[in-house]
Amino acid sequence: MGDPIANLVTLFARLPGVGERTATRLAFFVLGAEREYALALGDALTHIHERVRRCERCNNYGAEAICAICADPRRDALTLCVVARVPDLVAIERSGTFRGRYHVLHGLLAPLEGIGPAELPLDALVDRVRAEGVAEIIVATPLSVEGEATALYIAEALAHTSVKVTRIASGVPHGGELEFTDQVTLGRALEGRRTL
Amino acid sequence: MGDPIANLVTLFARLPGVGERTATRLAFFVLGAEREYALALGDALTHIHERVRRCERCNNYGAEAICAICADPRRDALTLCVVARVPDLVAIERSGTFRGRYHVLHGLLAPLEGIGPAELPLDALVDRVRAEGVAEIIVATPLSVEGEATALYIAEALAHTSVKVTRIASGVPHGGELEFTDQVTLGRALEGRRTL
Repeated sequence: MGDPIANLVTLFARLPGVGERTATRLAFFVLGAEREYALALGDALTHIHERVRRCERCNNYGAEAICAICADPRRDALTLCVVARVPDLVAIERSGTFRGRYHVLHGLLAPLEGIGPAELPLDALVDRVRAEGVAEIIVATPLSVEGEATALYIAEALAHTSVKVTRIASGVPHGGELEFTDQVTLGRALEGRRTL
Repeated sequence: MGDPIANLVTLFARLPGVGERTATRLAFFVLGAEREYALALGDALTHIHERVRRCERCNNYGAEAICAICADPRRDALTLCVVARVPDLVAIERSGTFRGRYHVLHGLLAPLEGIGPAELPLDALVDRVRAEGVAEIIVATPLSVEGEATALYIAEALAHTSVKVTRIASGVPHGGELEFTDQVTLGRALEGRRTL
C-alpha cells in the first residue's frame, strides 16, 4: 500500500483526462471534505460493477435483467439503433430525436487488436432482427475506420433478411464552418446532399 | 440509492473542476474498466480518512503520529514554514528550496466565516516556538486578504518572543494559490523573504 495519499493519487490519475497534478488536487479535496463524501464515493465505486447489469436484450446498462429502455412499452420495437458504447446511446437519448430501441456492441471490429465478429454481440443482433420482427436497423457507430467497417459488416450480415439497414448521415456539424471542416467530412457532406 | 450510475455521476460531479459531463465520462470509464480498478479506487477512498493522520506536531498528513518531515532528523528544526494547507506544503517541497519543517494551519483567519484565532492551531505554533527553540518562522500563507491577515496575526502573536518572523516575497502573484505556482517562482519567493 505504501503512502495512502500517493496510492489515491495514482488511482485517480488513471481516470481519463486526469493528470498527476489534477489527481493530487482531487486527493487533497477528498481529504479536506467531510468523511461522508469519501465513504459515499468509495461505496459507489466498490459496488458499481455488481449494481450495474448489462441488459440481456440490448446490452445497455441498467439495474435489472432488462434495461429501462427495452422495458418501456412506448418505445418503438421495430427500429433498432446500433451503437458502439453506452455513452453514445446516452448522447442520442439526450438529442430527443429517437424513439426506438438500441443494440449496444461495447466495442467495434478491430482485427489488429484481436476483436473480430465473435467478440461483439453481432449474432445476437441478427437473432433479435428475426425474433422481434425489426423493420429497420440504424447503424450509429462512429464515422471512423473501425466504425465504418463494423457498419459494413452489419449490413452484410443482414443482407439476406428483409430488414432495412441504414447509416446515420455524415456531414458538416451544426454550426460548423466549411472553412475549418476536414476534406473527408466535406466530401461526405457533398455526397450525401439532399433536395431542399 | 436509485440509479447506481446516476449516483456515481452525482458523486464524481462534486469533485473540483468536474462538471456533469466529465462526471458521466468518468463513471462510464469505471464501468468499462476492469473490476479491480473500481475496487481499488473504492477501497482507497473508503479508508483514506482513517489511513491518513494529522501529525501531532505540525498537522501535516501522514501515516504515523509524527509525519515523515518532522521525523526526519536531517530537516532543520530551527526554521518553521507556516502554510495554510497541505497542498501548499507539497508545492514548497516540490520546489526543493526549503530544508526546514512546517506548521500547517488547515485554514486561514476569516472572521466573516467564523474562523478566528481559536479555530486555527496558532497557540500550538507559539508553543512550538518556545518548546523547540525555533529561530525563524517563515509565513507562507497565500498572498490574499485572509493570508495576509493571518501572517500579520502570527507576527503580532510572536512579537514578544525572540523568533524572527519572515514573510515569503511577493514573487507569488497577488491572489495566487501556492499550489499552482511554478517551482522557480516559489523558490524565489522563499529566497526573497522579508522581516515583518
